[in-house]
Amino acid sequence: MPRPLVVDVEVTGGDLALVAIVTVIALGALGMAVLFRSEVLRAGEGTANMQRIAQAVQEGANAYLTRQFKTLTVFAAIAFIVLLALPAHSADGASGLHSEWATRIFRSIFFLVGASFSGAIGYLGMSLAVRANLRVAAAANERGREPAMNIGFRTGAFVGMATVGLGLLGASVVVIVFQDTAPNVLEGFGFGAALLAMFMRVGGGIFTKAADVGADLVGKVEQNIPEDDPRNAATIADNVGDNVGDCAGMAADLFESYAVTLVAALILGSQAFGDKGLVFPLVVPAIGALSAIAGVYLTKPRVGENGLRTINRSFYLSAAVGLVASAIASFLYLPGTWSELGTGVSADLAPPVFAAGAVAIGIVLAAAILALTGYFTGTEHRPVNDVARTSLTGHATVILSGLSVGLESAVYTAIVIGGAVFGAALLAGGSTGLALFAVSLAGCGLLTTVGVIVAMDTFGPVSDNAQGIAEMSGDVSAEGAQILTELDAVGNTTKAITKGIAIATAVLAASALFASYTQSAFEEAGSAITDKFLVFDAKLIVGALLGAGVVFLFSGLAINAVGRAAGAVVYEVRRQFREIPGIMEGTGRPEYGRVVDIVTRDSLRELATPGILAILAPVAVGFGLGVGPLAGFLVGAIACGTLMAVFLANAGGAWDNAKKLVEDGNYGGKGSEAHAATVTGDTVGDPFKDTAGPAINPLLKVMNLVSLLIVGAVVSLSYGSSKNDVVRILIALAAAAGIFAAVYVSKQRTSSLNDGASEPAAMESA
Amino acid sequence: MPRPLVVDVEVTGGDLALVAIVTVIALGALGMAVLFRSEVLRAGEGTANMQRIAQAVQEGANAYLTRQFKTLTVFAAIAFIVLLALPAHSADGASGLHSEWATRIFRSIFFLVGASFSGAIGYLGMSLAVRANLRVAAAANERGREPAMNIGFRTGAFVGMATVGLGLLGASVVVIVFQDTAPNVLEGFGFGAALLAMFMRVGGGIFTKAADVGADLVGKVEQNIPEDDPRNAATIADNVGDNVGDCAGMAADLFESYAVTLVAALILGSQAFGDKGLVFPLVVPAIGALSAIAGVYLTKPRVGENGLRTINRSFYLSAAVGLVASAIASFLYLPGTWSELGTGVSADLAPPVFAAGAVAIGIVLAAAILALTGYFTGTEHRPVNDVARTSLTGHATVILSGLSVGLESAVYTAIVIGGAVFGAALLAGGSTGLALFAVSLAGCGLLTTVGVIVAMDTFGPVSDNAQGIAEMSGDVSAEGAQILTELDAVGNTTKAITKGIAIATAVLAASALFASYTQSAFEEAGSAITDKFLVFDAKLIVGALLGAGVVFLFSGLAINAVGRAAGAVVYEVRRQFREIPGIMEGTGRPEYGRVVDIVTRDSLRELATPGILAILAPVAVGFGLGVGPLAGFLVGAIACGTLMAVFLANAGGAWDNAKKLVEDGNYGGKGSEAHAATVTGDTVGDPFKDTAGPAINPLLKVMNLVSLLIVGAVVSLSYGSSKNDVVRILIALAAAAGIFAAVYVSKQRTSSLNDGASEPAAMESA
Repeated sequence: MPRPLVVDVEVTGGDLALVAIVTVIALGALGMAVLFRSEVLRAGEGTANMQRIAQAVQEGANAYLTRQFKTLTVFAAIAFIVLLALPAHSADGASGLHSEWATRIFRSIFFLVGASFSGAIGYLGMSLAVRANLRVAAAANERGREPAMNIGFRTGAFVGMATVGLGLLGASVVVIVFQDTAPNVLEGFGFGAALLAMFMRVGGGIFTKAADVGADLVGKVEQNIPEDDPRNAATIADNVGDNVGDCAGMAADLFESYAVTLVAALILGSQAFGDKGLVFPLVVPAIGALSAIAGVYLTKPRVGENGLRTINRSFYLSAAVGLVASAIASFLYLPGTWSELGTGVSADLAPPVFAAGAVAIGIVLAAAILALTGYFTGTEHRPVNDVARTSLTGHATVILSGLSVGLESAVYTAIVIGGAVFGAALLAGGSTGLALFAVSLAGCGLLTTVGVIVAMDTFGPVSDNAQGIAEMSGDVSAEGAQILTELDAVGNTTKAITKGIAIATAVLAASALFASYTQSAFEEAGSAITDKFLVFDAKLIVGALLGAGVVFLFSGLAINAVGRAAGAVVYEVRRQFREIPGIMEGTGRPEYGRVVDIVTRDSLRELATPGILAILAPVAVGFGLGVGPLAGFLVGAIACGTLMAVFLANAGGAWDNAKKLVEDGNYGGKGSEAHAATVTGDTVGDPFKDTAGPAINPLLKVMNLVSLLIVGAVVSLSYGSSKNDVVRILIALAAAAGIFAAVYVSKQRTSSLNDGASEPAAMESA
Repeated sequence: MPRPLVVDVEVTGGDLALVAIVTVIALGALGMAVLFRSEVLRAGEGTANMQRIAQAVQEGANAYLTRQFKTLTVFAAIAFIVLLALPAHSADGASGLHSEWATRIFRSIFFLVGASFSGAIGYLGMSLAVRANLRVAAAANERGREPAMNIGFRTGAFVGMATVGLGLLGASVVVIVFQDTAPNVLEGFGFGAALLAMFMRVGGGIFTKAADVGADLVGKVEQNIPEDDPRNAATIADNVGDNVGDCAGMAADLFESYAVTLVAALILGSQAFGDKGLVFPLVVPAIGALSAIAGVYLTKPRVGENGLRTINRSFYLSAAVGLVASAIASFLYLPGTWSELGTGVSADLAPPVFAAGAVAIGIVLAAAILALTGYFTGTEHRPVNDVARTSLTGHATVILSGLSVGLESAVYTAIVIGGAVFGAALLAGGSTGLALFAVSLAGCGLLTTVGVIVAMDTFGPVSDNAQGIAEMSGDVSAEGAQILTELDAVGNTTKAITKGIAIATAVLAASALFASYTQSAFEEAGSAITDKFLVFDAKLIVGALLGAGVVFLFSGLAINAVGRAAGAVVYEVRRQFREIPGIMEGTGRPEYGRVVDIVTRDSLRELATPGILAILAPVAVGFGLGVGPLAGFLVGAIACGTLMAVFLANAGGAWDNAKKLVEDGNYGGKGSEAHAATVTGDTVGDPFKDTAGPAINPLLKVMNLVSLLIVGAVVSLSYGSSKNDVVRILIALAAAAGIFAAVYVSKQRTSSLNDGASEPAAMESA
């Protein structure tokens, strides 16, 4: 069953024209993005007070992202050079643009393109969001609910269209230019997107939750003042965090999901479908781009309708259009028999049925996760109500019930995702290679919904921040405040739902990348190494154990980083309450900027350790234990990572909404013991759902891409003519040492923070 | 590489004599157990007050275990019949004792033997422990620290010797009587032990933590009265829980680890080493039995020495003796070349070096885990101190820091266990089959330490209960109380350490069973199905996802069950405080028995759902998705389960000891805000470390054993002459329906409890 990774395909004639059309659609999506952006910017900017606050948030967010990009330049430069050094696949004797060296060079260049696109999406999304926040607040105050909601959703649509446009643009241009070496160049593109997204997710996730947790611990818990109260020195940092984490980090992450799924589908597609396999995976998301525009334009908030219904309508509409259109495209574009494809693979179902079925599975999967996540994290269903009720027996029972909701819900999501993968595999009959292409096509099906999903997700931080600005400015009427509270609650739910879908895309993309990894290994070493991939090999089981371990370690590091950075915020805000007279009375003004600076510094310092872990762990396992254990490692990481990501996201979402239920007046309402218990739950849930959980998506893809990139080197050092165990082990030891050093350094920070002489003493007196 | 599961071996002559000697050693160990028991019973029984309390605890514990055994009879009867119905392996044309039907019948009979042994260990351990508690309390009061410690450790030694004795007895008798079909009969023995242990672990774990958490929530958190205060109606239930959960449940669990590891080693051993492979895996733990006796007898508490040092000395001494003696046995017993073994397998290392190396890896692994767990959960090291310090910033930060300690420490333990498996595999050179035998031999190495480990573990609940009885009786001097507090702290640490080692034995045993599973599949279907076990098969990845999912679901169910049962305790204790006049003043007497009844009823009801999940999940996956996905399922479960079990155990241990640090006067000491925060941590940690975490050990083994038992049926319905997809799918659907029904029923309980009309209202007024 091993099949070559590089097949001799040429995209010509009608196929080439079709890819060109995809490029045009990509440019069209970018044009729509510009249009949405100008719609948002045309809206009114509210009172001077609001503008002053929004200005502070904008400055903080810009400063953070700029410094983050500077920090990441170092990583990008190293990755660029390492990519040049790693062997690339190319057809024997190819020259010019298709030679091995050209492939290496363009892989490195497109690594930078992928990274820049990922960063650009994050930056653009954030820079519009910080302007939109203010406008949503102003519209809610002056013009009512529907205009406010419209601005928020248009902001999301901008990010969605930019994501889809840049993703399709990058992939289609690579296919047109590189043709048969496109899969290799795309590895670089995907890796760039994934690497940058992971760092932005981790860094932004730490920033947003350190500020949020820190603000809550001092404000809500200790001083008993409301959220977003201007007396709390951490409020501006909290709002900055919404933009750099929930908005920029998430946008980069979803772009990366988009790019990597496309990359995986194109790599596997060329093997299964020949030249048509380099085109069809582009056609499906292009259809998605068009259906997303339809979804956004046809989404008009109806008066009196719950905001979530409006957004869900947009999703289902766009999904239905995508479903029908991609089925039609399959039948129009793909031949009726496998022999016409000429790649030697076949299944019982005809190619169009196979392809349309796989895409449909992906779209249905998105809808199923939407429903499932809504059930487990929505305030109107039993799980969240059960968690809220346990607040009557205290902090500990809230934590326990939230943890068990998270643990259990993860399983249902895993069953749904597993069912989709299994269904896709069944479409392929007995063919292992075709099964994995089906999985990646299901991923493309999921992608058709990404435009709307990104829009839904961005709506969350924008409405959250709009409420913050309104609250802090003090300029908003009771009615306006009510509208903003409702929109914030809608945003909470859409954020939770899109997390579930992001995880599903990650699993499908990671499984497909994993397939490319093993096929790459076979190409290097021949089918003689098949035995290494038997699941009952003891070494492979060790790999699986380590793969699950990386997921645990990564989650632990991310949670720990938030705890550490939040501690620093708590100490600083306490210091300001103590040292600046009149803050509580409203006569003294807190130094907001200092908190922003502290969180910026800490987040940038903290993002390195999990990042290094993600990059070096596959290197250590692959070179140290071998190509089979690395496969086990990836399976262990995918299996455990899926569960962990959903667990963290849903436990966090359930706690968040349980708190809202109590705040709405249940079980004693605000200020009661029960409320304090749910605040504890929400605080624990913050780094779960917004730092560790979502960062597992890019983690899985980065580890699979690193494995795919190093597999040639691993195989040739282990089995090939250049077999050299000493070099192999030295590389592994260096990678392992790098991980341990990074973890050790972050542990030292824990103790230096804790030992910070004045803080604990100051605290006890506070 | 597929090799037959049943090889034609005959244990005769010198080998048979050796196995007979093992049987004698087993009987000797049981004799030692009787001796230790009488030593304990000879000690003084303390004051009348103490005896009265101990009596109540004894009655509650007896009543619970008796009802539990009755409940489990139903499960045992069903399993007995199902086992009869499942095909067994036997050499072609064998007749009499070795025919297929005889094998089936004896497998069922030895299933009952295994289950009875497991239950007996639990029952005997508990019935001595409830007598020992009182005697430890009395000795601490009247005779001082060393005699008190001696009684506690002798009680543990009784359970340890009984575990080792019954385990060796069962296995050696089966080998003598059944010879070449011994592996099949042993599957029944192991399954019986594992199944009963899992139920006792889950039921006892829910009991002990429901009572403990319930008592803490009302007593420490709401009423601010100390632990074990007689005014708290849940105190007797809490003490009963220590005995039925920490003592009976844990003893059954460790017996099961012992039995299953032996079973796995004997199955794989006959293939690798021929007849000597049915003897050597018995010789190693027999040596362990002798070295454990040495360890126990040479352990004399030195005056002024920390109790933990004494116990550690016993462990290291016994491990060192075991290490040297098994190396000598390898060289004396095994031939110098592979050809002399005549099984066709070979490695670069000579058989004695191979075997001694594998056993040594197991023993070193035990020592490494001892050190590692001690570091992460001991009060003198940084992790626990870091957790304690976060209590200064409130409940949420204590939870977050404990979770991240747990997540991170799990990874180091996984690396150590993975390193042991990898090291064992390296000893085998390139042979997959031999590698897995090496892993099971490493498991036997671990077993040499089990005698002492069980003794250490039992010491925990005994010292905990002794303190409880002393506190409640009010008859103990300040000095005696001080001694008991110290012994309780030692017990906390030994409990945490032995959990780590129990997990390691579970991983090694499960990996070895997993190997038997795949070899069984090959025997049924031939090597044509090798492709099904390729790790990159999409269906296998789905299996891995579901395997990880079962671990999450099982943990969530167990935690949820504790939360639910603890809620019932809280409501009942609150009711008693409200309705029985004078409890707080000490003039009214709480109704302790009612709380014991409630917890008994709830625990027995709650143990069914996780138990059904463990048994039916492999059935649903195996029959529904196939033999390859079931392999993926087992790998996913082993990888994720290992991490989850250590995470839960260590997070719980860290919280427990962080609380102790604060209670020792740090960060404000007892009664401070910081203390309240650590009590929340400890309460969350209770079901982590004593219910969900330890129950994952038997879960992994039950699922592997179920897979091993059904693999013949799965293969013949999928590929064999009796291929029948309809029957196969129906079985899978029935199993899946069974799981969902069980989960659904337990969810209904959640809401009926929560909806209990009077409770929440009553609470708000409390």
